[in-house]
Amino acid sequence: MTTRAEALALDAADPLAGFRDRFVHGDGARIYLDGNSLGRLPVATRERLRAGVDEWGERLVTGWHAWIDAPRRVGDLIGETLLGVEPGEVLVGDSTTVDLFKLCGALTAVRDGALVVPLDEFPTDRYVLQGLAEANGRELRLLESDPVAGPTAAEVDRALAGGDVAFVVLSHVNYRSGALADLEEITAVGRHHGVPVVWDLCHSVGVVPLELGARGAELAVGCTYKYLNAGPGSPAFLYVARAWQPRLRSPIQGWFAQEDQFAMGHPFARRDGIEGFLAGTPAILDLAAVEEGVKLTGEAGLAAIRAKSVALTELIVELHDERLASLGVSLGSPRDSARRGSHVSLRHPDAWPICRALIEQADVVPDFRAPDSIRLGVPPLYTRFVDVWDAVDRMCSLVARGEHERIGSDRSRVT
Amino acid sequence: MTTRAEALALDAADPLAGFRDRFVHGDGARIYLDGNSLGRLPVATRERLRAGVDEWGERLVTGWHAWIDAPRRVGDLIGETLLGVEPGEVLVGDSTTVDLFKLCGALTAVRDGALVVPLDEFPTDRYVLQGLAEANGRELRLLESDPVAGPTAAEVDRALAGGDVAFVVLSHVNYRSGALADLEEITAVGRHHGVPVVWDLCHSVGVVPLELGARGAELAVGCTYKYLNAGPGSPAFLYVARAWQPRLRSPIQGWFAQEDQFAMGHPFARRDGIEGFLAGTPAILDLAAVEEGVKLTGEAGLAAIRAKSVALTELIVELHDERLASLGVSLGSPRDSARRGSHVSLRHPDAWPICRALIEQADVVPDFRAPDSIRLGVPPLYTRFVDVWDAVDRMCSLVARGEHERIGSDRSRVT
Repeated sequence: MTTRAEALALDAADPLAGFRDRFVHGDGARIYLDGNSLGRLPVATRERLRAGVDEWGERLVTGWHAWIDAPRRVGDLIGETLLGVEPGEVLVGDSTTVDLFKLCGALTAVRDGALVVPLDEFPTDRYVLQGLAEANGRELRLLESDPVAGPTAAEVDRALAGGDVAFVVLSHVNYRSGALADLEEITAVGRHHGVPVVWDLCHSVGVVPLELGARGAELAVGCTYKYLNAGPGSPAFLYVARAWQPRLRSPIQGWFAQEDQFAMGHPFARRDGIEGFLAGTPAILDLAAVEEGVKLTGEAGLAAIRAKSVALTELIVELHDERLASLGVSLGSPRDSARRGSHVSLRHPDAWPICRALIEQADVVPDFRAPDSIRLGVPPLYTRFVDVWDAVDRMCSLVARGEHERIGSDRSRVT
Repeated sequence: MTTRAEALALDAADPLAGFRDRFVHGDGARIYLDGNSLGRLPVATRERLRAGVDEWGERLVTGWHAWIDAPRRVGDLIGETLLGVEPGEVLVGDSTTVDLFKLCGALTAVRDGALVVPLDEFPTDRYVLQGLAEANGRELRLLESDPVAGPTAAEVDRALAGGDVAFVVLSHVNYRSGALADLEEITAVGRHHGVPVVWDLCHSVGVVPLELGARGAELAVGCTYKYLNAGPGSPAFLYVARAWQPRLRSPIQGWFAQEDQFAMGHPFARRDGIEGFLAGTPAILDLAAVEEGVKLTGEAGLAAIRAKSVALTELIVELHDERLASLGVSLGSPRDSARRGSHVSLRHPDAWPICRALIEQADVVPDFRAPDSIRLGVPPLYTRFVDVWDAVDRMCSLVARGEHERIGSDRSRVT
């Protein structure tokens, strides 16, 4: 049995341990294992947002001299620090949903065929593609995949073998299982079939080294409020490799994408490069929060972050085998750490009341995902090994005593 | 001649004078006449944003219980306080460009015919419509209008007389001239021709009483960073009267518009009501800033705001006639205050260098709009009559001495 002392020893040896104090812990003694849904507030971000508000108050409209390039500047920072791509290939702004719409709408306009997405993909990706398919008279092809390990390269290969596919959208790390897709191989499978793959990096950016350029991935979107800790509803980013840029036109033509924007002329003349994907006026405070979050992640380094992430999820798997399995819990995530992101899904028929009981009675915040998954997210910058040990210990105790059975079935919409 | 003492007397008698101290004046002695581009920072908003950041740090993901309804809650506040429409008809989120795309994309899908927009409309509106027209094989019909008074109801009537029009988009207050369109009559002209009118309220919301419901307007978008003082790039709002809601489907289908969102099921099942226009995860801090800005405006009251706005722009027109006209400046805004918003456009062939000289040498911040307009914006909550007097006085002095002629022609992109 893994002991609490062993978890404490892992913390004592953790090279990233010092980063925990770079975050606000305004929730007291709670064990927060849902940073994969909404990341913690970095101390530097709190200061930066205060300064950003004051900057608005002082500079007023003249602040735009510095602000106007922020979507590209912060995009380049993400590109260099986290994605491994060139300057001028990433842009920050709008939500993941809107960015996905812009990118997939542009692809739909230049490629015939079906739009392919896993049935188990995060909902907004499916819904955006369904909307585009319906509006353009296309088939929406739902790729069935293994609920724990999928989608695999073989599954994607089968879905593309029939031909007539415009593009595929899929998550690098699955939101429910935490399965880490083989980005390089699946991209190669797509290329083999002549089909571009759009990667949704929401659950991998900032916690898994990406190296998109070296691995051949050319199109992606991702969010910044999970492992990049930029706050509730912070803007997403969009990556379009340079080779694709001249071919893709965002369906949303806004004034920030206009060449010589302040001449305010007619007709629309799209800016070259990634800026052609800009739309309306960017949210400046939000971009400042993204910039701080990315800097902090870059300071820790993705290699160290990934190493600790693997160790943390390995501990959950070990504790599952040692203590949870006998309580009716099964592992909903891949056993192979090389195929796992930074959260682990634990399945149980009573997942919902167990989650509620953990929050209400055990001071542990996991996440519930329908129908039967308890997600434990372990962002390495602020999660301790002992947090994982304590959380699992409290969960074992609670389930063993049947405390979750007193929780009603009234499901609130958000954890 | 209007004297400085007379301006000071107007300030002494101003019932809204006390609202000036509700804003941060971090720019010192500068005279800021560009709140129609980016509004000042309200003191309450600075505090609210600090609290909002702390709330993120404390509540983390559990904060979503309170945050998730913010787009609708703040929308209802705008609807009641500023637009005169019913609860459930307004939503806050995304940029004006994206909201306009959602609304006009939905209209394009259900109505045949040309998309009509004034040639003199704010650029993003033209560009969004041009994109929709090209993607859907429609004509983009550019309505020519009087550069000072237009677009008038007669001009809109002529544009619609040819028939085969899907819808019209136009600004309630023109961004360059400040002309206040006859919302009620133009909406009625549209109805006469069976053509819906989408109002862009960016330059009127918060400074002109709207009463959209009583006046028959059913579709609109508007921004919150001008007269609502919600900060650089703060989210826009979208108004869809209840009667239109069942007919319109946003082309961007995101997970926040999904019935039973957290069941994360398939296929997409659009929520009834205005929430069907939600897309991705809303930006929570930004929504808090919007809420504070709207509250402050509501506290002052639109009737008092409009009365002071008219008095301020009347003073500019008087000073133009008395002092600026003889220096080669002409009035680019309507003389009739009933047909004017809250900014005045002063035209001069050297508008660009005059603007630069005002900013760099005279501590006055106006706004330049191509090709020859100097905009003086006078948000009534924090603009004094003596500010207007001093700004015009400095402009007269500067132009009379030819100081602007020493400014180079290198045009920065933003004022």
